[in-house]
Amino acid sequence: MDRLAQQIQFVVEIDKLKQVVRRARLMDNSRYENDAEHSWHQAAMAMVLAEHANDAQVDRFRVMRMLVIHDLVEIDAGDTFAYDVTGHLDKAERERKAADRLFGMLPSDQAQELRGLWDEFEERVTPEARFAAALDRFQPLLHNYHTQGHTWKKFGITAEMVLSRNASIAEGSEALWAYAQRLIEESVEKGYLPEGKPAAAGN
Amino acid sequence: MDRLAQQIQFVVEIDKLKQVVRRARLMDNSRYENDAEHSWHQAAMAMVLAEHANDAQVDRFRVMRMLVIHDLVEIDAGDTFAYDVTGHLDKAERERKAADRLFGMLPSDQAQELRGLWDEFEERVTPEARFAAALDRFQPLLHNYHTQGHTWKKFGITAEMVLSRNASIAEGSEALWAYAQRLIEESVEKGYLPEGKPAAAGN
Repeated sequence: MDRLAQQIQFVVEIDKLKQVVRRARLMDNSRYENDAEHSWHQAAMAMVLAEHANDAQVDRFRVMRMLVIHDLVEIDAGDTFAYDVTGHLDKAERERKAADRLFGMLPSDQAQELRGLWDEFEERVTPEARFAAALDRFQPLLHNYHTQGHTWKKFGITAEMVLSRNASIAEGSEALWAYAQRLIEESVEKGYLPEGKPAAAGN
Repeated sequence: MDRLAQQIQFVVEIDKLKQVVRRARLMDNSRYENDAEHSWHQAAMAMVLAEHANDAQVDRFRVMRMLVIHDLVEIDAGDTFAYDVTGHLDKAERERKAADRLFGMLPSDQAQELRGLWDEFEERVTPEARFAAALDRFQPLLHNYHTQGHTWKKFGITAEMVLSRNASIAEGSEALWAYAQRLIEESVEKGYLPEGKPAAAGN
């Protein structure tokens, strides 16, 4: 098979990302969001919010590429809800297998490039990966706020859980984390999110 | 309003792109595609197909940014079907107004950056814009091929119309246009697309 035909097989395969449904609702609460829409929104956010990364010199192109491909593995592994403890037990293993299969469809130089970007995103070490991950956590907060806490209410999530789950936003962007904390506070005030007491250390 | 809050209002506003329905079906024919999914797919295609641009030195970052924002104007102006002659009469004017409003929501430096990218895409002069436009025309062919010509059949589109409408793919990528012509030929052979005779010059 020639190189272009191989690349187009990959392009056709990843159409399936449009069918991976997330727990977030669209901001007008009309239906659930899917991974393709989410990935597009993330790339657009990278374009307009990159100046708020902790490292102001963050490589926007690498951030965008990471965000475009960060959820492809969910074509095989499915979306694991942020607060699903059981689902997270084997998440890494399921996603690693999916990455092997999906990126493996590409010519080897591109398989390596995309797998490298995905590994970088997962490892959360570089400023680009930390900022991309911050956007990935920040966006669901926006969706929850604009749907009066739809997903929080549905799964009995408390402010305590949201704060603890999302504190790592600060590793990518202190500015976004400050904004997120105000959103969470307002969500509690407006009754979108029950407060919940901080758990004692070790519990 | 501070700069971050202004940018986030834009991020919230563009969530509406997820509700702009296109004429293309997902590749498994389960439902219609929307503009946000389409824009994500386009950005991913830019990542893996850029080497096939006529200008091999094409700036992939600019191509991706163009593709992420190229359909935002459809939030206000709606999707104009490629073969809708009446819809194209006032398309430019509707979309220009939409661009004024949407990009105008951003801080002025970013409004200028995104408007510049959108204008560049619309003008089809730079190698980046021509390649981005080639991807934008190529993708619906793939969707039609994989759905046995769903949209072609529904609107009585012929091979002659598809060839004439999409010949400009060659301005961005000769390689993609060669591939597209093979897809169209195969679609005729398989009965997805009625042949239709090439119009005489001047008709």
